[in-house]
Amino acid sequence: MAMKRAAASAVRAITSSGNSSPSSVLVRHLHASPGSKKIVGVFYKANEYASMNPNFLGCVENALGIREWLESQGHQYIVTPDKDGPDSELEKHMSDLHVLITTPFHPAYVTAERIKKAKNLQLLLTAGIGSDHIDLKAAADAGLTVAEVTGSNVVSVAEDELMRILILVRNFLPGYHQVINGDWNVAAIAHRAYDLEGKTVGTVGAGRIGRLLLQRLKPFNCNLLYHDRIKMDHELESQIGAKFEEDLDAMLPKCDIIVINTPLTEKTKGMFDKNMIAKLKKGVLIVNNARGAIMDTQAVVDACSSGHIAGYSGDVWYPQPAPKDHPWRYMPNQAMTPHISGTTIDAQVRYAAGVKDMLDRYFKGEDFPTQHYIVKDGELASQYR
Amino acid sequence: MAMKRAAASAVRAITSSGNSSPSSVLVRHLHASPGSKKIVGVFYKANEYASMNPNFLGCVENALGIREWLESQGHQYIVTPDKDGPDSELEKHMSDLHVLITTPFHPAYVTAERIKKAKNLQLLLTAGIGSDHIDLKAAADAGLTVAEVTGSNVVSVAEDELMRILILVRNFLPGYHQVINGDWNVAAIAHRAYDLEGKTVGTVGAGRIGRLLLQRLKPFNCNLLYHDRIKMDHELESQIGAKFEEDLDAMLPKCDIIVINTPLTEKTKGMFDKNMIAKLKKGVLIVNNARGAIMDTQAVVDACSSGHIAGYSGDVWYPQPAPKDHPWRYMPNQAMTPHISGTTIDAQVRYAAGVKDMLDRYFKGEDFPTQHYIVKDGELASQYR
Repeated sequence: MAMKRAAASAVRAITSSGNSSPSSVLVRHLHASPGSKKIVGVFYKANEYASMNPNFLGCVENALGIREWLESQGHQYIVTPDKDGPDSELEKHMSDLHVLITTPFHPAYVTAERIKKAKNLQLLLTAGIGSDHIDLKAAADAGLTVAEVTGSNVVSVAEDELMRILILVRNFLPGYHQVINGDWNVAAIAHRAYDLEGKTVGTVGAGRIGRLLLQRLKPFNCNLLYHDRIKMDHELESQIGAKFEEDLDAMLPKCDIIVINTPLTEKTKGMFDKNMIAKLKKGVLIVNNARGAIMDTQAVVDACSSGHIAGYSGDVWYPQPAPKDHPWRYMPNQAMTPHISGTTIDAQVRYAAGVKDMLDRYFKGEDFPTQHYIVKDGELASQYR
Repeated sequence: MAMKRAAASAVRAITSSGNSSPSSVLVRHLHASPGSKKIVGVFYKANEYASMNPNFLGCVENALGIREWLESQGHQYIVTPDKDGPDSELEKHMSDLHVLITTPFHPAYVTAERIKKAKNLQLLLTAGIGSDHIDLKAAADAGLTVAEVTGSNVVSVAEDELMRILILVRNFLPGYHQVINGDWNVAAIAHRAYDLEGKTVGTVGAGRIGRLLLQRLKPFNCNLLYHDRIKMDHELESQIGAKFEEDLDAMLPKCDIIVINTPLTEKTKGMFDKNMIAKLKKGVLIVNNARGAIMDTQAVVDACSSGHIAGYSGDVWYPQPAPKDHPWRYMPNQAMTPHISGTTIDAQVRYAAGVKDMLDRYFKGEDFPTQHYIVKDGELASQYR
């Protein structure tokens, strides 16, 4: 495959781009005590797909490609997809593991109860971005460190968001359905197919992913808006070409297309409910690759059914995996996928390298790159507060 | 619908951007002889969709929105979707029409035979871009003028191409199928999902659409290549960030993704045959919104089946409408639609305005904007030679 070679070079980029760790004088919570560590990784199972691509690292079978490296240093490395309930494989190891590696794509819910049970646990690593499957307050209270591979898949997610914007604006899926059903009816597609050019696109949140999206949107000649806790500095803002909207309630009704780029927190949970959606433009398109629980599930279904939301696309659900009867599977004008945008082959190569780098620093008692910390010294990173 | 308002402003943009006609001293072939003209338009039928959007102008029912204007000036305006064969509505009018308006989306094939029959025919207007459904040599020999609304939907097509690149690179459709089938298997998608970043994208042809695509690709940090008859000037090339490849055969094997942006001519017809495809990278992705007949139909099917082509997406077929048994409907890893990319609502508003402007100039005996001519004074425009 042509793509495999291109992806391979990504690993060099990420390993050389991490901030170099300062020789810090701060107390280090992460001195690895001498001797063997028990490391548990929870990933999705790839079955027959595991061997189809040598860079398919983020699955149970390939286990981030770090087994040999870990075992050669005398550590124990257990990998499983079995994460839910008291009889799960993960549960069995909670009492004596030192490090737990999880992903947002197949989230192992690390509850306060599990944290209480995990007497040896020191480090929770997220292979990817988004650690809301962990009870971060409980982790902070227990003195644990939580870290993500910040940056590892921001490009992957931003690209995917732009794809979804185009799929909705241009009304791609009805045309595809015609093709596979043997039909041809241009009018049935065209009457609600538009150009992206000239439309108003607003992002709720303009962190790393939101900014990368805005940069990619710039040549499309849209009217770009962003809401965030922090206004970008003037130079970056004019380079990106987006207008800051301090008041979210003022921004949302202006948007033809809304993209959710905010983490799931107590504040954002369920924020797109019936009342909020009623304030949006009739015919609005929504892209959400952030977290499913930011939306009120039924409110989205109702608005897609009434046409108030003219299209909804994203790869995040609550819970995950989405059950067979999740109503978003069957609502009109959806362009959904399973949680995939951050786990492209390129992203896997990068977050596998990022996890390995943090484990190496952990064993050596070194700090991680600052931007990777989600919980450190009992404090949550600002975006999760 | 939020989008309708945004589209409406497009008409102002196009009507003000047309080149002003120089007071030419050239012989004009297009003096409208005094009196009523018979104008025939061939469009797709929209049925129940025609009334769903006031800007849905490019269908039989809404007839470019120029009926009242034409009839108020005493012209006859006949509109039909019935275009094929000796008993078709179009055939009946060939003998005495003065102007024929067609579109690439529902192409009326204007053969040498039909041209011979059309004794009063002076002007062939394409509502959109791409006039290969007209026998251009026969039109030139008969002294006819052929013109397109150049620029009317180049943005529409370029946006659509970028959407298709992302759909293929990121392996969108298998994920969507899982959703509607009640499944959840991230591995089955992820093992062949990639970022666009870092990949090599080559466009065969870098005219208006190809350049707009390259501009939109720039922030994705790809390796951009283009092949064209003409090298861009240095400033444009460095602004777009693409490298000129004089030798097509040298460019194609370098590409992870190939986009076809060349008109259908005698030279390009069937150029992607078995031999050409064999030279491409294994796992190449191909996007073709240009013309279906540039590809050898069966060679594409075979290469998609073997995996040599890892994904094929486009909206153009041969013939159109694609019959129910067209093999591209059923080949693996296709992301096809009916011919739709250039007929978004925004594009319709622009090409309807462009056709009206050219008819107005025709009635007044004025030249068209130069870039609109495909055949003038017995000469083909350079891209069709």
